[in-house]
Amino acid sequence: MSGAAVRALRVTRVVDGASGDVDDRVAVEEPLEVRVNNSPFAVIMRTPGEDVPLAAGFLLAEDVVHAADEIAAIEQCDDVEDDARGNVLNVTVTGEAAIRVEARLGERRQIITTAACGLCGRRTIESIRSRVSTVGGQWTVPAAVVSRLPDALREAQDAFALTGGIHASALCDLDGRVRLAAEDVGRHNALDKIVGRALLEGLVPLDRTLLVVSGRSSYELVQKALLAGVPLVAGVSAPSSLAVELARATGITLCGFVRGTSMNVYTHPERITR
Amino acid sequence: MSGAAVRALRVTRVVDGASGDVDDRVAVEEPLEVRVNNSPFAVIMRTPGEDVPLAAGFLLAEDVVHAADEIAAIEQCDDVEDDARGNVLNVTVTGEAAIRVEARLGERRQIITTAACGLCGRRTIESIRSRVSTVGGQWTVPAAVVSRLPDALREAQDAFALTGGIHASALCDLDGRVRLAAEDVGRHNALDKIVGRALLEGLVPLDRTLLVVSGRSSYELVQKALLAGVPLVAGVSAPSSLAVELARATGITLCGFVRGTSMNVYTHPERITR
Repeated sequence: MSGAAVRALRVTRVVDGASGDVDDRVAVEEPLEVRVNNSPFAVIMRTPGEDVPLAAGFLLAEDVVHAADEIAAIEQCDDVEDDARGNVLNVTVTGEAAIRVEARLGERRQIITTAACGLCGRRTIESIRSRVSTVGGQWTVPAAVVSRLPDALREAQDAFALTGGIHASALCDLDGRVRLAAEDVGRHNALDKIVGRALLEGLVPLDRTLLVVSGRSSYELVQKALLAGVPLVAGVSAPSSLAVELARATGITLCGFVRGTSMNVYTHPERITR
Repeated sequence: MSGAAVRALRVTRVVDGASGDVDDRVAVEEPLEVRVNNSPFAVIMRTPGEDVPLAAGFLLAEDVVHAADEIAAIEQCDDVEDDARGNVLNVTVTGEAAIRVEARLGERRQIITTAACGLCGRRTIESIRSRVSTVGGQWTVPAAVVSRLPDALREAQDAFALTGGIHASALCDLDGRVRLAAEDVGRHNALDKIVGRALLEGLVPLDRTLLVVSGRSSYELVQKALLAGVPLVAGVSAPSSLAVELARATGITLCGFVRGTSMNVYTHPERITR
Protein backbone atom coordinates (compact mmCIF):
# COMPACT_ATOMS: atom_id res chain seq x y z
CA MET A 1 0.00 0.00 0.00
CA SER A 2 2.92 2.31 0.65
CA GLY A 3 4.18 4.15 -2.40
CA ALA A 4 4.63 7.52 -3.95
CA ALA A 5 3.89 10.85 -2.34
CA VAL A 6 1.37 11.75 -5.01
CA ARG A 7 -1.69 9.84 -6.24
CA ALA A 8 -3.56 10.41 -9.50
CA LEU A 9 -7.34 10.58 -9.50
CA ARG A 10 -10.29 11.94 -11.50
CA VAL A 11 -12.02 15.05 -10.16
CA THR A 12 -14.96 17.11 -11.28
CA ARG A 13 -13.62 20.54 -12.15
CA VAL A 14 -16.20 23.32 -11.89
CA VAL A 15 -15.42 26.65 -13.58
CA ASP A 16 -18.04 29.39 -13.82
CA GLY A 17 -20.80 26.85 -13.28
CA ALA A 18 -19.69 24.51 -16.07
CA SER A 19 -18.21 21.20 -14.98
CA GLY A 20 -16.21 18.32 -16.46
CA ASP A 21 -14.04 15.48 -15.24
CA VAL A 22 -10.28 16.01 -15.36
CA ASP A 23 -7.17 14.18 -14.18
CA ASP A 24 -5.72 15.52 -10.95
CA ARG A 25 -3.27 14.54 -8.24
CA VAL A 26 -3.46 14.62 -4.45
CA ALA A 27 -0.83 14.21 -1.76
CA VAL A 28 -0.87 10.72 -0.30
CA GLU A 29 -1.74 10.35 3.39
CA GLU A 30 -1.38 6.92 5.02
CA PRO A 31 -0.89 5.67 8.57
CA LEU A 32 2.59 4.60 9.67
CA GLU A 33 2.73 2.49 12.80
CA VAL A 34 5.92 2.98 14.76
CA ARG A 35 6.83 0.18 17.14
CA VAL A 36 9.68 0.49 19.61
CA ASN A 37 11.35 -2.75 20.72
CA ASN A 38 8.33 -4.51 19.20
CA SER A 39 5.74 -2.65 21.27
CA PRO A 40 3.27 -0.40 19.42
CA PHE A 41 4.27 3.18 20.21
CA ALA A 42 2.42 5.49 17.82
CA VAL A 43 0.56 5.69 14.55
CA ILE A 44 1.47 8.72 12.47
CA MET A 45 -0.62 9.92 9.52
CA ARG A 46 2.06 10.72 6.99
CA THR A 47 3.00 10.91 3.33
CA PRO A 48 4.95 7.70 2.53
CA GLY A 49 8.65 8.15 1.88
CA GLU A 50 11.56 8.79 4.23
CA ASP A 51 9.79 6.58 6.77
CA VAL A 52 13.01 5.50 8.50
CA PRO A 53 14.19 9.09 9.14
CA LEU A 54 10.61 9.99 10.10
CA ALA A 55 10.59 7.31 12.79
CA ALA A 56 14.00 8.44 14.07
CA GLY A 57 13.06 12.13 14.11
CA PHE A 58 9.72 11.37 15.75
CA LEU A 59 11.40 9.45 18.57
CA LEU A 60 13.89 12.30 19.08
CA ALA A 61 11.01 14.79 19.27
CA GLU A 62 9.18 12.44 21.64
CA ASP A 63 12.27 12.53 23.88
CA VAL A 64 12.62 8.73 23.69
CA VAL A 65 15.90 8.86 21.76
CA HIS A 66 18.64 11.37 22.62
CA ALA A 67 21.37 10.27 20.20
CA ALA A 68 21.84 8.13 17.11
CA ASP A 69 23.81 5.46 18.98
CA GLU A 70 20.71 4.59 20.98
CA ILE A 71 19.08 3.34 17.75
CA ALA A 72 20.27 -0.17 16.90
CA ALA A 73 17.97 -0.77 13.93
CA ILE A 74 14.88 0.51 12.11
CA GLU A 75 13.20 -2.24 10.10
CA GLN A 76 9.93 -2.97 8.33
CA CYS A 77 7.69 -5.47 10.10
CA ASP A 78 6.49 -8.45 8.12
CA ASP A 79 4.01 -9.80 10.66
CA VAL A 80 1.26 -7.53 9.36
CA GLU A 81 -1.66 -7.89 6.98
CA ASP A 82 -0.98 -7.35 3.31
CA ASP A 83 -2.58 -3.93 3.06
CA ALA A 84 -0.48 -2.63 5.97
CA ARG A 85 2.80 -3.89 4.53
CA GLY A 86 5.29 -1.05 4.28
CA ASN A 87 3.32 0.91 6.86
CA VAL A 88 4.76 -0.65 10.03
CA LEU A 89 8.30 -0.01 11.29
CA ASN A 90 10.02 -1.43 14.35
CA VAL A 91 12.73 0.67 15.97
CA THR A 92 15.17 -1.21 18.18
CA VAL A 93 16.56 1.11 20.83
CA THR A 94 19.24 0.37 23.43
CA GLY A 95 20.63 1.71 26.67
CA GLU A 96 18.85 4.60 28.34
CA ALA A 97 16.41 4.85 25.42
CA ALA A 98 15.09 1.36 26.20
CA ILE A 99 14.39 2.46 29.75
CA ARG A 100 12.79 5.71 28.59
CA VAL A 101 10.47 3.95 26.18
CA GLU A 102 9.29 1.50 28.82
CA ALA A 103 8.36 4.41 31.05
CA ARG A 104 6.53 6.09 28.20
CA LEU A 105 4.66 2.95 27.23
CA GLY A 106 3.55 2.65 30.80
CA GLU A 107 2.06 6.13 30.54
CA ARG A 108 0.28 5.60 27.30
CA ARG A 109 -0.57 2.47 25.36
CA GLN A 110 -0.97 2.58 21.61
CA ILE A 111 -1.31 6.28 21.04
CA ILE A 112 -2.49 7.39 17.65
CA THR A 113 -0.77 10.51 16.47
CA THR A 114 -1.97 12.59 13.56
CA ALA A 115 -0.24 14.28 10.68
CA ALA A 116 0.45 17.29 12.84
CA CYS A 117 0.81 15.79 16.30
CA GLY A 118 4.06 16.06 18.11
CA LEU A 119 3.46 17.16 21.64
CA CYS A 120 2.56 13.81 23.20
CA GLY A 121 4.14 13.60 26.63
CA ARG A 122 4.98 17.28 27.01
CA ARG A 123 2.76 19.61 28.94
CA THR A 124 4.64 22.77 29.64
CA ILE A 125 7.62 24.79 28.60
CA GLU A 126 9.16 23.95 31.94
CA SER A 127 8.96 20.23 31.40
CA ILE A 128 10.69 20.48 28.04
CA ARG A 129 13.27 22.86 29.45
CA SER A 130 14.14 20.39 32.16
CA ARG A 131 16.14 18.45 29.60
CA VAL A 132 17.22 21.03 27.04
CA SER A 133 17.49 24.48 28.52
CA THR A 134 18.88 26.47 25.59
CA VAL A 135 20.24 26.03 22.09
CA GLY A 136 23.81 26.85 21.14
CA GLY A 137 24.85 28.84 18.10
CA GLN A 138 26.60 32.12 18.87
CA TRP A 139 26.90 33.04 15.17
CA THR A 140 25.07 35.72 13.21
CA VAL A 141 23.42 35.57 9.81
CA PRO A 142 22.56 38.42 7.41
CA ALA A 143 18.85 39.26 7.07
CA ALA A 144 19.21 38.77 3.32
CA VAL A 145 20.09 35.09 3.85
CA VAL A 146 16.97 34.55 5.98
CA SER A 147 14.86 36.36 3.39
CA ARG A 148 15.93 33.90 0.72
CA LEU A 149 15.01 30.79 2.76
CA PRO A 150 11.34 30.52 1.66
CA ASP A 151 12.35 30.56 -2.02
CA ALA A 152 14.99 27.92 -1.34
CA LEU A 153 12.33 25.80 0.37
CA ARG A 154 9.92 26.11 -2.54
CA GLU A 155 12.63 25.14 -5.01
CA ALA A 156 13.25 21.98 -2.97
CA GLN A 157 9.57 20.94 -3.12
CA ASP A 158 8.50 18.38 -5.68
CA ALA A 159 5.05 17.29 -4.65
CA PHE A 160 3.64 20.72 -3.86
CA ALA A 161 3.85 21.77 -7.48
CA LEU A 162 1.78 18.72 -8.37
CA THR A 163 -0.79 18.76 -5.59
CA GLY A 164 -0.75 22.15 -3.87
CA GLY A 165 -1.46 20.30 -0.66
CA ILE A 166 1.73 19.37 1.07
CA HIS A 167 3.95 20.98 3.67
CA ALA A 168 7.71 21.24 3.60
CA SER A 169 10.66 21.84 5.88
CA ALA A 170 14.32 22.35 5.11
CA LEU A 171 17.52 22.53 7.11
CA CYS A 172 19.93 25.04 5.58
CA ASP A 173 23.51 26.00 6.27
CA LEU A 174 24.47 29.47 7.42
CA ASP A 175 24.75 30.61 3.80
CA GLY A 176 21.11 29.63 3.23
CA ARG A 177 21.84 26.55 1.10
CA VAL A 178 19.36 23.70 1.56
CA ARG A 179 21.09 20.66 3.07
CA LEU A 180 18.06 18.49 3.86
CA ALA A 181 14.45 18.96 2.76
CA ALA A 182 11.28 16.91 3.04
CA GLU A 183 7.59 17.15 2.21
CA ASP A 184 4.60 15.67 3.98
CA VAL A 185 0.88 16.22 4.42
CA GLY A 186 1.83 16.99 8.03
CA ARG A 187 4.06 19.96 8.78
CA HIS A 188 5.49 18.17 11.77
CA ASN A 189 6.29 15.03 9.81
CA ALA A 190 8.26 17.05 7.26
CA LEU A 191 10.40 18.37 10.10
CA ASP A 192 10.74 14.96 11.78
CA LYS A 193 11.93 13.49 8.47
CA ILE A 194 14.83 15.91 8.03
CA VAL A 195 15.80 15.97 11.70
CA GLY A 196 15.68 12.18 11.69
CA ARG A 197 17.96 12.03 8.69
CA ALA A 198 20.38 14.41 10.40
CA LEU A 199 20.21 12.33 13.58
CA LEU A 200 20.99 9.10 11.74
CA GLU A 201 23.94 10.83 10.05
CA GLY A 202 25.33 12.00 13.38
CA LEU A 203 24.67 15.70 12.72
CA VAL A 204 22.55 16.48 15.82
CA PRO A 205 22.75 18.96 17.57
CA LEU A 206 22.21 21.07 14.45
CA ASP A 207 23.71 24.18 15.99
CA ARG A 208 24.95 25.72 12.74
CA THR A 209 21.64 25.29 10.95
CA LEU A 210 18.70 27.43 9.84
CA LEU A 211 15.27 25.77 9.75
CA VAL A 212 12.66 27.00 7.30
CA VAL A 213 9.08 25.74 7.43
CA SER A 214 5.93 26.20 5.38
CA GLY A 215 2.90 27.27 7.32
CA ARG A 216 2.71 28.70 10.79
CA SER A 217 5.09 28.07 13.68
CA SER A 218 3.39 26.32 16.57
CA TYR A 219 4.72 25.37 19.99
CA GLU A 220 5.44 21.83 18.84
CA LEU A 221 7.48 22.97 15.87
CA VAL A 222 9.70 25.12 18.09
CA GLN A 223 9.97 22.23 20.54
CA LYS A 224 11.18 19.93 17.78
CA ALA A 225 13.74 22.54 16.71
CA LEU A 226 14.90 22.82 20.32
CA LEU A 227 15.37 19.07 20.76
CA ALA A 228 17.35 19.00 17.50
CA GLY A 229 19.45 21.97 18.65
CA VAL A 230 18.43 24.30 15.78
CA PRO A 231 19.05 27.96 16.77
CA LEU A 232 16.96 29.74 14.08
CA VAL A 233 13.47 28.98 12.79
CA ALA A 234 12.00 30.91 9.86
CA GLY A 235 8.43 30.65 8.59
CA VAL A 236 6.41 32.40 5.93
CA SER A 237 3.43 32.62 8.26
CA ALA A 238 2.75 33.56 11.87
CA PRO A 239 3.89 31.93 15.11
CA SER A 240 1.63 31.23 18.07
CA SER A 241 2.07 32.85 21.48
CA LEU A 242 3.45 29.66 23.02
CA ALA A 243 5.92 29.23 20.17
CA VAL A 244 7.21 32.75 20.89
CA GLU A 245 7.44 32.03 24.63
CA LEU A 246 9.33 28.77 24.15
CA ALA A 247 11.73 30.33 21.61
CA ARG A 248 12.41 33.28 23.91
CA ALA A 249 13.09 31.02 26.90
CA THR A 250 15.45 28.71 25.06
CA GLY A 251 17.51 31.09 22.93
CA ILE A 252 15.94 30.32 19.56
CA THR A 253 15.66 33.09 16.96
CA LEU A 254 12.08 32.89 15.66
CA CYS A 255 11.28 34.68 12.38
CA GLY A 256 7.80 34.92 10.91
CA PHE A 257 6.17 36.45 7.83
CA VAL A 258 9.46 36.05 5.95
CA ARG A 259 8.25 37.54 2.66
CA GLY A 260 10.23 39.42 0.06
CA THR A 261 12.79 41.55 1.89
CA SER A 262 10.81 41.90 5.11
CA MET A 263 10.25 39.72 8.16
CA ASN A 264 9.23 39.83 11.81
CA VAL A 265 11.81 38.64 14.33
CA TYR A 266 9.89 37.56 17.41
CA THR A 267 12.79 36.46 19.60
CA HIS A 268 16.57 36.79 19.83
CA PRO A 269 17.10 39.21 16.93
CA GLU A 270 20.79 39.43 17.90
CA ARG A 271 21.55 36.59 15.46
CA ILE A 272 20.28 38.66 12.50
CA THR A 273 22.57 41.27 10.94
CA ARG A 274 22.04 43.71 8.08
CA MET B 1 -3.73 32.31 32.38
CA SER B 2 -6.64 31.79 30.02
CA GLY B 3 -7.75 34.87 28.14
CA ALA B 4 -8.13 36.45 24.77
CA ALA B 5 -7.38 34.81 21.43
CA VAL B 6 -4.79 37.43 20.59
CA ARG B 7 -1.76 38.61 22.56
CA ALA B 8 0.20 41.82 22.03
CA LEU B 9 3.98 41.75 21.96
CA ARG B 10 7.00 43.65 20.66
CA VAL B 11 8.76 42.30 17.60
CA THR B 12 11.79 43.36 15.61
CA ARG B 13 10.52 44.27 12.15
CA VAL B 14 13.17 43.95 9.43
CA VAL B 15 12.51 45.66 6.09
CA ASP B 16 15.20 45.83 3.41
CA GLY B 17 17.87 45.22 6.02
CA ALA B 18 16.75 48.03 8.33
CA SER B 19 15.19 46.98 11.62
CA GLY B 20 13.17 48.49 14.42
CA ASP B 21 10.90 47.33 17.23
CA VAL B 22 7.17 47.54 16.62
CA ASP B 23 3.99 46.41 18.35
CA ASP B 24 2.50 43.22 16.98
CA ARG B 25 -0.02 40.55 17.90
CA VAL B 26 0.08 36.77 17.82
CA ALA B 27 -2.62 34.14 18.16
CA VAL B 28 -2.69 32.67 21.66
CA GLU B 29 -1.91 28.95 22.04
CA GLU B 30 -2.39 27.32 25.44
CA PRO B 31 -2.98 23.77 26.68
CA LEU B 32 -6.50 22.75 27.68
CA GLU B 33 -6.74 19.61 29.78
CA VAL B 34 -9.98 17.72 29.19
CA ARG B 35 -11.01 15.36 31.98
CA VAL B 36 -13.90 12.96 31.59
CA ASN B 37 -15.67 11.89 34.78
CA ASN B 38 -12.66 13.32 36.63
CA SER B 39 -10.06 11.20 34.81
CA PRO B 40 -7.50 13.01 32.61
CA PHE B 41 -8.44 12.25 29.02
CA ALA B 42 -6.48 14.60 26.76
CA VAL B 43 -4.56 17.83 26.61
CA ILE B 44 -5.37 19.95 23.56
CA MET B 45 -3.19 22.85 22.43
CA ARG B 46 -5.81 25.44 21.58
CA THR B 47 -6.64 29.12 21.37
CA PRO B 48 -8.64 29.95 24.53
CA GLY B 49 -12.32 30.69 24.01
CA GLU B 50 -15.26 28.40 23.30
CA ASP B 51 -13.60 25.82 25.55
CA VAL B 52 -16.88 24.16 26.55
CA PRO B 53 -17.99 23.55 22.92
CA LEU B 54 -14.41 22.52 22.09
CA ALA B 55 -14.51 19.82 24.77
CA ALA B 56 -17.93 18.62 23.57
CA GLY B 57 -16.91 18.56 19.91
CA PHE B 58 -13.62 16.86 20.72
CA LEU B 59 -15.40 14.07 22.60
CA LEU B 60 -17.83 13.63 19.70
CA ALA B 61 -14.91 13.37 17.27
CA GLU B 62 -13.18 10.95 19.64
CA ASP B 63 -16.30 8.78 19.49
CA VAL B 64 -16.75 8.98 23.27
CA VAL B 65 -19.98 10.98 23.07
CA HIS B 66 -22.66 10.19 20.51
CA ALA B 67 -25.38 12.65 21.56
CA ALA B 68 -25.82 15.75 23.67
CA ASP B 69 -27.91 13.92 26.30
CA GLU B 70 -24.86 11.86 27.24
CA ILE B 71 -23.19 15.05 28.53
CA ALA B 72 -24.44 15.91 32.01
CA ALA B 73 -22.08 18.82 32.68
CA ILE B 74 -18.93 20.57 31.48
CA GLU B 75 -17.27 22.54 34.26
CA GLN B 76 -13.99 24.23 35.09
CA CYS B 77 -11.84 22.39 37.61
CA ASP B 78 -10.65 24.34 40.64
CA ASP B 79 -8.25 21.74 42.04
CA VAL B 80 -5.43 22.98 39.84
CA GLU B 81 -2.47 25.30 40.25
CA ASP B 82 -3.05 28.98 39.73
CA ASP B 83 -1.37 29.18 36.35
CA ALA B 84 -3.51 26.34 34.99
CA ARG B 85 -6.79 27.88 36.16
CA GLY B 86 -9.20 28.18 33.26
CA ASN B 87 -7.25 25.55 31.34
CA VAL B 88 -8.80 22.42 32.88
CA LEU B 89 -12.35 21.25 32.16
CA ASN B 90 -14.17 18.21 33.52
CA VAL B 91 -16.88 16.67 31.35
CA THR B 92 -19.41 14.51 33.16
CA VAL B 93 -20.80 11.89 30.81
CA THR B 94 -23.54 9.36 31.46
CA GLY B 95 -24.98 6.13 30.09
CA GLU B 96 -23.15 4.46 27.23
CA ALA B 97 -20.65 7.32 27.04
CA ALA B 98 -19.43 6.50 30.56
CA ILE B 99 -18.78 2.93 29.48
CA ARG B 100 -17.07 4.06 26.26
CA VAL B 101 -14.73 6.42 28.08
CA GLU B 102 -13.68 3.73 30.55
CA ALA B 103 -12.73 1.49 27.66
CA ARG B 104 -10.80 4.30 26.01
CA LEU B 105 -9.00 5.22 29.20
CA GLY B 106 -7.96 1.62 29.53
CA GLU B 107 -6.36 1.87 26.09
CA ARG B 108 -4.55 5.08 26.68
CA ARG B 109 -3.75 7.03 29.80
CA GLN B 110 -3.26 10.76 29.73
CA ILE B 111 -2.81 11.35 26.04
CA ILE B 112 -1.54 14.71 24.99
CA THR B 113 -3.16 15.93 21.82
CA THR B 114 -1.85 18.81 19.77
CA ALA B 115 -3.47 21.73 18.05
CA ALA B 116 -4.11 19.57 15.02
CA CYS B 117 -4.60 16.14 16.53
CA GLY B 118 -7.89 14.41 16.21
CA LEU B 119 -7.35 10.85 15.13
CA CYS B 120 -6.57 9.27 18.48
CA GLY B 121 -8.22 5.85 18.63
CA ARG B 122 -8.98 5.47 14.94
CA ARG B 123 -6.71 3.58 12.62
CA THR B 124 -8.56 2.89 9.43
CA ILE B 125 -11.48 3.99 7.37
CA GLU B 126 -13.13 0.67 8.16
CA SER B 127 -12.97 1.21 11.88
CA ILE B 128 -14.62 4.60 11.59
CA ARG B 129 -17.19 3.26 9.17
CA SER B 130 -18.16 0.56 11.63
CA ARG B 131 -20.19 3.17 13.52
CA VAL B 132 -21.13 5.76 10.90
CA SER B 133 -21.36 4.31 7.43
CA THR B 134 -22.64 7.27 5.42
CA VAL B 135 -23.95 10.78 5.85
CA GLY B 136 -27.49 11.80 4.93
CA GLY B 137 -28.40 14.89 2.92
CA GLN B 138 -30.10 14.17 -0.39
CA TRP B 139 -30.30 17.86 -1.32
CA THR B 140 -28.36 19.78 -3.97
CA VAL B 141 -26.64 23.15 -3.77
CA PRO B 142 -25.66 25.53 -6.58
CA ALA B 143 -21.94 25.79 -7.33
CA ALA B 144 -22.22 29.54 -6.85
CA VAL B 145 -23.20 29.04 -3.20
CA VAL B 146 -20.15 26.84 -2.58
CA SER B 147 -17.92 29.39 -4.32
CA ARG B 148 -19.01 32.07 -1.88
CA LEU B 149 -18.20 30.01 1.24
CA PRO B 150 -14.51 31.02 1.58
CA ASP B 151 -15.44 34.72 1.52
CA ALA B 152 -18.15 34.10 4.10
CA LEU B 153 -15.58 32.32 6.28
CA ARG B 154 -13.10 35.20 6.02
CA GLU B 155 -15.79 37.72 6.94
CA ALA B 156 -16.51 35.68 10.08
CA GLN B 157 -12.87 35.75 11.21
CA ASP B 158 -11.77 38.30 13.80
CA ALA B 159 -8.36 37.18 14.95
CA PHE B 160 -6.90 36.37 11.55
CA ALA B 161 -7.02 40.00 10.52
CA LEU B 162 -4.97 40.82 13.61
CA THR B 163 -2.47 37.97 13.62
CA GLY B 164 -2.50 36.26 10.23
CA GLY B 165 -1.88 33.04 12.09
CA ILE B 166 -5.13 31.39 12.96
CA HIS B 167 -7.36 28.84 11.28
CA ALA B 168 -11.12 28.99 10.94
CA SER B 169 -14.10 26.77 10.27
CA ALA B 170 -17.74 27.64 9.68
CA LEU B 171 -20.98 25.71 9.42
CA CYS B 172 -23.29 27.28 6.85
CA ASP B 173 -26.88 26.68 5.81
CA LEU B 174 -27.78 25.54 2.31
CA ASP B 175 -27.95 29.18 1.19
CA GLY B 176 -24.33 29.66 2.27
CA ARG B 177 -25.09 31.80 5.32
CA VAL B 178 -22.67 31.29 8.23
CA ARG B 179 -24.50 29.80 11.22
CA LEU B 180 -21.54 28.95 13.45
CA ALA B 181 -17.90 29.97 13.07
CA ALA B 182 -14.77 29.62 15.19
CA GLU B 183 -11.07 30.38 15.03
CA ASP B 184 -8.15 28.53 16.57
CA VAL B 185 -4.42 27.99 16.11
CA GLY B 186 -5.44 24.42 15.31
CA ARG B 187 -7.62 23.72 12.29
CA HIS B 188 -9.16 20.76 14.04
CA ASN B 189 -9.98 22.73 17.15
CA ALA B 190 -11.85 25.33 15.10
CA LEU B 191 -14.03 22.55 13.73
CA ASP B 192 -14.47 20.86 17.12
CA LYS B 193 -15.62 24.20 18.57
CA ILE B 194 -18.46 24.70 16.08
CA VAL B 195 -19.50 21.05 15.99
CA GLY B 196 -19.45 21.05 19.80
CA ARG B 197 -21.69 24.10 19.90
CA ALA B 198 -24.08 22.46 17.46
CA LEU B 199 -24.03 19.26 19.54
CA LEU B 200 -24.84 21.12 22.76
CA GLU B 201 -27.71 22.89 20.96
CA GLY B 202 -29.16 19.56 19.75
CA LEU B 203 -28.38 20.23 16.06
CA VAL B 204 -26.31 17.07 15.35
CA PRO B 205 -26.50 15.36 12.83
CA LEU B 206 -25.84 18.46 10.76
CA ASP B 207 -27.32 16.95 7.61
CA ARG B 208 -28.44 20.24 6.06
CA THR B 209 -25.12 21.97 6.57
CA LEU B 210 -22.11 23.00 4.49
CA LEU B 211 -18.73 23.02 6.23
CA VAL B 212 -16.03 25.42 5.07
CA VAL B 213 -12.48 25.21 6.42
CA SER B 214 -9.28 27.18 6.02
CA GLY B 215 -6.26 25.17 5.03
CA ARG B 216 -6.09 21.71 3.59
CA SER B 217 -8.56 18.87 4.16
CA SER B 218 -6.98 15.92 5.94
CA TYR B 219 -8.40 12.54 6.84
CA GLU B 220 -9.16 13.69 10.37
CA LEU B 221 -11.11 16.71 9.19
CA VAL B 222 -13.35 14.56 6.98
CA GLN B 223 -13.72 12.08 9.85
CA LYS B 224 -14.92 14.88 12.13
CA ALA B 225 -17.40 16.01 9.47
CA LEU B 226 -18.64 12.43 9.15
CA LEU B 227 -19.19 11.99 12.89
CA ALA B 228 -21.10 15.28 12.92
CA GLY B 229 -23.16 14.19 9.90
CA VAL B 230 -22.04 17.04 7.62
CA PRO B 231 -22.59 16.08 3.93
CA LEU B 232 -20.41 18.72 2.21
CA VAL B 233 -16.91 19.94 3.06
CA ALA B 234 -15.33 22.84 1.16
CA GLY B 235 -11.76 24.03 1.51
CA VAL B 236 -9.63 26.65 -0.20
CA SER B 237 -6.68 24.26 -0.36
CA ALA B 238 -6.05 20.62 -1.28
CA PRO B 239 -7.31 17.42 0.31
CA SER B 240 -5.13 14.38 1.05
CA SER B 241 -5.60 11.00 -0.58
CA LEU B 242 -7.09 9.47 2.56
CA ALA B 243 -9.52 12.39 2.94
CA VAL B 244 -10.74 11.70 -0.59
CA GLU B 245 -11.08 7.97 0.10
CA LEU B 246 -13.03 8.49 3.32
CA ALA B 247 -15.33 11.08 1.71
CA ARG B 248 -16.00 8.80 -1.25
CA ALA B 249 -16.78 5.81 0.99
CA THR B 250 -19.15 7.72 3.25
CA GLY B 251 -21.12 9.88 0.84
CA ILE B 252 -19.49 13.22 1.64
CA THR B 253 -19.09 15.82 -1.12
CA LEU B 254 -15.50 17.05 -0.83
CA CYS B 255 -14.59 20.31 -2.61
CA GLY B 256 -11.06 21.70 -2.75
CA PHE B 257 -9.34 24.75 -4.23
CA VAL B 258 -12.58 26.70 -3.91
CA ARG B 259 -11.28 29.97 -5.35
CA GLY B 260 -13.16 32.61 -7.29
CA THR B 261 -15.70 30.86 -9.47
CA SER B 262 -13.78 27.58 -9.79
CA MET B 263 -13.33 24.50 -7.61
CA ASN B 264 -12.41 20.83 -7.69
CA VAL B 265 -15.06 18.38 -6.56
CA TYR B 266 -13.24 15.25 -5.45
CA THR B 267 -16.21 13.12 -4.42
CA HIS B 268 -19.98 13.00 -4.83
CA PRO B 269 -20.40 15.90 -7.27
CA GLU B 270 -24.09 15.01 -7.58
CA ARG B 271 -24.87 17.45 -4.75
CA ILE B 272 -23.48 20.40 -6.77
CA THR B 273 -25.69 22.01 -9.43
CA ARG B 274 -25.05 24.86 -11.84
